[in-house]
Amino acid sequence: MPLQPSRTVGDLEQLRALTGDENGAQRVAWTETWEQARDFLRSKVAGTGAEEEVDEAGNQWFTLPGDSDRALLIGGHMDSVPNGGWLDGCLNVMGGVEVLRRIAEEGRPPVTVRLVSWADEEGARFGRSLFGSSAAAGSMQDQDELRTLRDRDGVALPDALREHGVDLDEALAARSQLENAGAYLELHIEQGPFLEEEGLAVGVVEGIVAIAWSRLTIHGVQDHAGPTPMRIRHDALVAASSVVTGVRGIAREIGGELVTTVGNLTVSPNIVNAIPGKVTLSIDMRDPQDATLDRALPMLDRVVREACEREGVRYELEHYWRVPRTPFDREVVAAVERAAQATGAGHRRILSGAGHDAQYMAAIGPAGMVFVPSRGGRSHCEEEFTGMDDIEHGANTLLGTALELAVTL
Amino acid sequence: MPLQPSRTVGDLEQLRALTGDENGAQRVAWTETWEQARDFLRSKVAGTGAEEEVDEAGNQWFTLPGDSDRALLIGGHMDSVPNGGWLDGCLNVMGGVEVLRRIAEEGRPPVTVRLVSWADEEGARFGRSLFGSSAAAGSMQDQDELRTLRDRDGVALPDALREHGVDLDEALAARSQLENAGAYLELHIEQGPFLEEEGLAVGVVEGIVAIAWSRLTIHGVQDHAGPTPMRIRHDALVAASSVVTGVRGIAREIGGELVTTVGNLTVSPNIVNAIPGKVTLSIDMRDPQDATLDRALPMLDRVVREACEREGVRYELEHYWRVPRTPFDREVVAAVERAAQATGAGHRRILSGAGHDAQYMAAIGPAGMVFVPSRGGRSHCEEEFTGMDDIEHGANTLLGTALELAVTL
Repeated sequence: MPLQPSRTVGDLEQLRALTGDENGAQRVAWTETWEQARDFLRSKVAGTGAEEEVDEAGNQWFTLPGDSDRALLIGGHMDSVPNGGWLDGCLNVMGGVEVLRRIAEEGRPPVTVRLVSWADEEGARFGRSLFGSSAAAGSMQDQDELRTLRDRDGVALPDALREHGVDLDEALAARSQLENAGAYLELHIEQGPFLEEEGLAVGVVEGIVAIAWSRLTIHGVQDHAGPTPMRIRHDALVAASSVVTGVRGIAREIGGELVTTVGNLTVSPNIVNAIPGKVTLSIDMRDPQDATLDRALPMLDRVVREACEREGVRYELEHYWRVPRTPFDREVVAAVERAAQATGAGHRRILSGAGHDAQYMAAIGPAGMVFVPSRGGRSHCEEEFTGMDDIEHGANTLLGTALELAVTL
Repeated sequence: MPLQPSRTVGDLEQLRALTGDENGAQRVAWTETWEQARDFLRSKVAGTGAEEEVDEAGNQWFTLPGDSDRALLIGGHMDSVPNGGWLDGCLNVMGGVEVLRRIAEEGRPPVTVRLVSWADEEGARFGRSLFGSSAAAGSMQDQDELRTLRDRDGVALPDALREHGVDLDEALAARSQLENAGAYLELHIEQGPFLEEEGLAVGVVEGIVAIAWSRLTIHGVQDHAGPTPMRIRHDALVAASSVVTGVRGIAREIGGELVTTVGNLTVSPNIVNAIPGKVTLSIDMRDPQDATLDRALPMLDRVVREACEREGVRYELEHYWRVPRTPFDREVVAAVERAAQATGAGHRRILSGAGHDAQYMAAIGPAGMVFVPSRGGRSHCEEEFTGMDDIEHGANTLLGTALELAVTL
């Protein structure tokens, strides 16, 4: 019997009212509203009989014991970006609750089924995404870096985590939750325009694009905007603006599916009548092919060098995070495809342009994902939307895949 | 007998230790450290016999009664930009304290002498400068605007003022302090490179350049930086960067003494993996000639229109503040020049590129200013510096002018 998604949509609307405002979802990880969202999840799982455990990294695990210890994992995340959407991350979790409920109704499953709500997928507060899943997978290569991260109010990451019961050292050490993991599934909105443009309800995700994150600090000369003649200026923001334009230019020059974004840019002292003395900014570049990023990164180096030389300013450019293209498990992808087919929905194979917790799970075992369309390709914004029919087909694809894997794991 | 500036420099160094840190002065108006600076001033004036009164706009007035009610005013401001310098604004005030002290030592002066420390000259917190002097002069044309201004934490200007004992409506209504004002003098650092480049100690300020401030809000389409292909993006920061480059280009194209600056730029939601949905930024343009700004403003309109059309984003551009070139009083300028000459210091006439409280005083009566050099032309930064000799010549020029005006007013 397929799922009826109306309960899931109802849960998501309740969550939206609880943790959002007129600008969208406000469930940034390691904040009060995020804790409210986690409590909400706890209350919704309560009826399924699954038991909760919070691991050292702050991930919430809900376990439905089966005949075998071998576990099928279904994952998502409750955190959002600021002014985010009502579906990103929590569709997977609330859809997973519905799958848990449905499996529990059928009696003890052949394998153990576990729903995990990962901590801090978005990295919105500290600029470091996929915290919980990378910790669980033992894939945190930036341990020293993590200790020094600060939010825009100057709060250090370890201190913020401690306020939410997470000790960074313990988070870095432990991965016990994944001992019996058999396969990992995640339902998510596409966040791009392709499924909608092609009139399809389900994306069978084959993998995740390669991603490179860089950060740039430009040191100009802070001075008064009035009496300082143009000839002696070294304006950090003028240099930064050339970089933003140049980053856009890299995507234009290389073309294809490469996307390049400057999402974060902060000016100091940031007042009308002072020439900016310092600018920090982020560069996000993604492509299906690792080789494209290998070409794009030296182009970024050149863009930054030329922009800063032209303005006579110092800079530090750091390529601090790089994940290669992540292929999903061939058999899991095939199972997702069969389940999509069984729902009768239009579907096709697709690559994810966004990073997901599934990429860390794919590094340690079989993983796969199901996409549903995003209206206008919009996400990370209040306008994020997926229609009820598409949610139904996506949730039933997740359920069908889970039921198949539950007997073949 | 001329002034010895060592006490003034000592006072300024004490103030720096009290209200600054390793990044510079932190005396932003309507904050706790600003109140500390005001208390410091109060304690320093105490010995002179001058009486304090705080007016409805938060300006501190220190009055030394004379034979006549007619008043000679000496002014400055204790507030700074964030990470500002140790001289901007408070050199005038602490130098003024020394002049008060010197005049008091000579017995009752022929005219009343008043030192005023204006509230919120910089406008660093709310982006609206010259608050106290424009209120005192009855020159606040932006009363409705003032009620809606907010700082970056969302605090409204009227609420912030109230915390410091100022009621905005009362501030807007009152100008009783200027009833008997005869002339106004202000000592200030040049904040530009010219005096230092020419090896001169004193600038005889003839007036203040024309200034135009605009603000721009760009509405892009916030979206996820990964799965959103370049072809459907409407990135507010890409458009804003073209504007920053274009604003620089206006100064290059018109040339001469025109200066153009984007000092404030704020991105929303400002995270690595979201395409910026909204950017607000400021444009500051200044020139000795009003006609130059009349040419520059339509060029700005065009730069903004073209940048936003190219990226397919909506915008609002507002030219919200414009002050014409302010000429200082011919006789006061001549008196400053005679006093500079008498100190034996190298001097020349100069125009101020920065706005000063003196411009509002010039609108209602005779006013003039004395400049001292700024090392490297730097100000609004920790590196702001003027040597002791130059401070001595500047302070003595202020004193000489005051003594002359005190008998001729």
